Amino acid sequence: MAKVGLRKNILSENDRIAAENRDLFDEAGVVVLNIISSPGSGKTTLLEGTLDRLSDKLRVLVIEGDVSTDRDIERVKAHGAGGVQINTGGGCHLSAKMVAKVLPELDLDSADVLFIENVGNLICPSTYDLGEDAKVVLLSTTEGDDKPMKYPTIFHESSVALLNKVDLLPHLPYDPERAEREIRVLNADCDVLRVSALTGDGMDGWIEWILSRLAEKRGDS
Amino acid sequence: MAKVGLRKNILSENDRIAAENRDLFDEAGVVVLNIISSPGSGKTTLLEGTLDRLSDKLRVLVIEGDVSTDRDIERVKAHGAGGVQINTGGGCHLSAKMVAKVLPELDLDSADVLFIENVGNLICPSTYDLGEDAKVVLLSTTEGDDKPMKYPTIFHESSVALLNKVDLLPHLPYDPERAEREIRVLNADCDVLRVSALTGDGMDGWIEWILSRLAEKRGDS
Repeated sequence: MAKVGLRKNILSENDRIAAENRDLFDEAGVVVLNIISSPGSGKTTLLEGTLDRLSDKLRVLVIEGDVSTDRDIERVKAHGAGGVQINTGGGCHLSAKMVAKVLPELDLDSADVLFIENVGNLICPSTYDLGEDAKVVLLSTTEGDDKPMKYPTIFHESSVALLNKVDLLPHLPYDPERAEREIRVLNADCDVLRVSALTGDGMDGWIEWILSRLAEKRGDS
Repeated sequence: MAKVGLRKNILSENDRIAAENRDLFDEAGVVVLNIISSPGSGKTTLLEGTLDRLSDKLRVLVIEGDVSTDRDIERVKAHGAGGVQINTGGGCHLSAKMVAKVLPELDLDSADVLFIENVGNLICPSTYDLGEDAKVVLLSTTEGDDKPMKYPTIFHESSVALLNKVDLLPHLPYDPERAEREIRVLNADCDVLRVSALTGDGMDGWIEWILSRLAEKRGDS
């Protein structure tokens, strides 16, 4: 019981700070997307391809979350984003407090979109609000079409699911329709997009999705 | 400070129960392997292929850990293993206590090898001893060759790393030698094996590795 109580306290403290983050994001009119997946599903490659397609239209910032190394922030900076790396030092998810701590380093007022790449983990980040407008879950085709039901929370919490690495479909025992069916059972409102961040296949639909969220947020849709 | 203290208490309680589990495993002379990876790296497919190769030689048991569903235990039972499913109900790793709770359901005395398939998570299971003889980490080639340094703890803690899905190498921007170099920097004693659980490539080396651990444990090596 003590542990359950502590977890509730941690979450309510997290929710309080997430609400403060959200106020800052809303004042700045920046759309914030919290990107969550297993390690190696292609979050950083997705961001690289997204930056290549958005950076002439929009001002984009990135917060990179990792257990260790600053490899990812170097990769996205090379594609034109400003941003900052958070190393959790073993921690399995980003918290609203970790995000709040780095916000003074970011010029939110001059930004349109802020991507937060969470730590590679399909479980723990699912229940931590960071103040984002939407959670985005990536599921790589190589992970198998049976994963939504096995990791239900993140699919329940996400506004869009990207089935990434569709370029590998010819080489895999994977049924994308099964994965989509499972996602829709868990969350009928979740958009599902098929992409290959590596080859660019399907990336136009993802860019449109981001632009529509921005239009919606700014009330000019 | 309070949170750090609580985490230490949880770990020392876990270590105490893990030591009790280990005593039971040692008395039974069963080799216990705790298999850890991201979701979808191929742990269950590896077990299916392992069972197909071992079940005429050895008596094998499996404990399946998952957030949700009993899909994995059904899969391994279809390949001849006895075993039991643990659902963590959202929990991000197995604990020694969860394992202790299901041990009465398993006939350890008549078993040679017990595989414990942990929850799909490359971070949280790394620091929880279950009483196993060795941790086995799987890294799918599709996850990228840069992952060891980004998730260092599990590679530091593991006795063997399996680079799985080598059948996909022709289609991936992946350098297996880079992954191996990173693993050896983190843990010079870690064996590294390249396998494809799907095609069977490299599985003989993995079976030999298991048999040598069993021989070592039983003192007849």
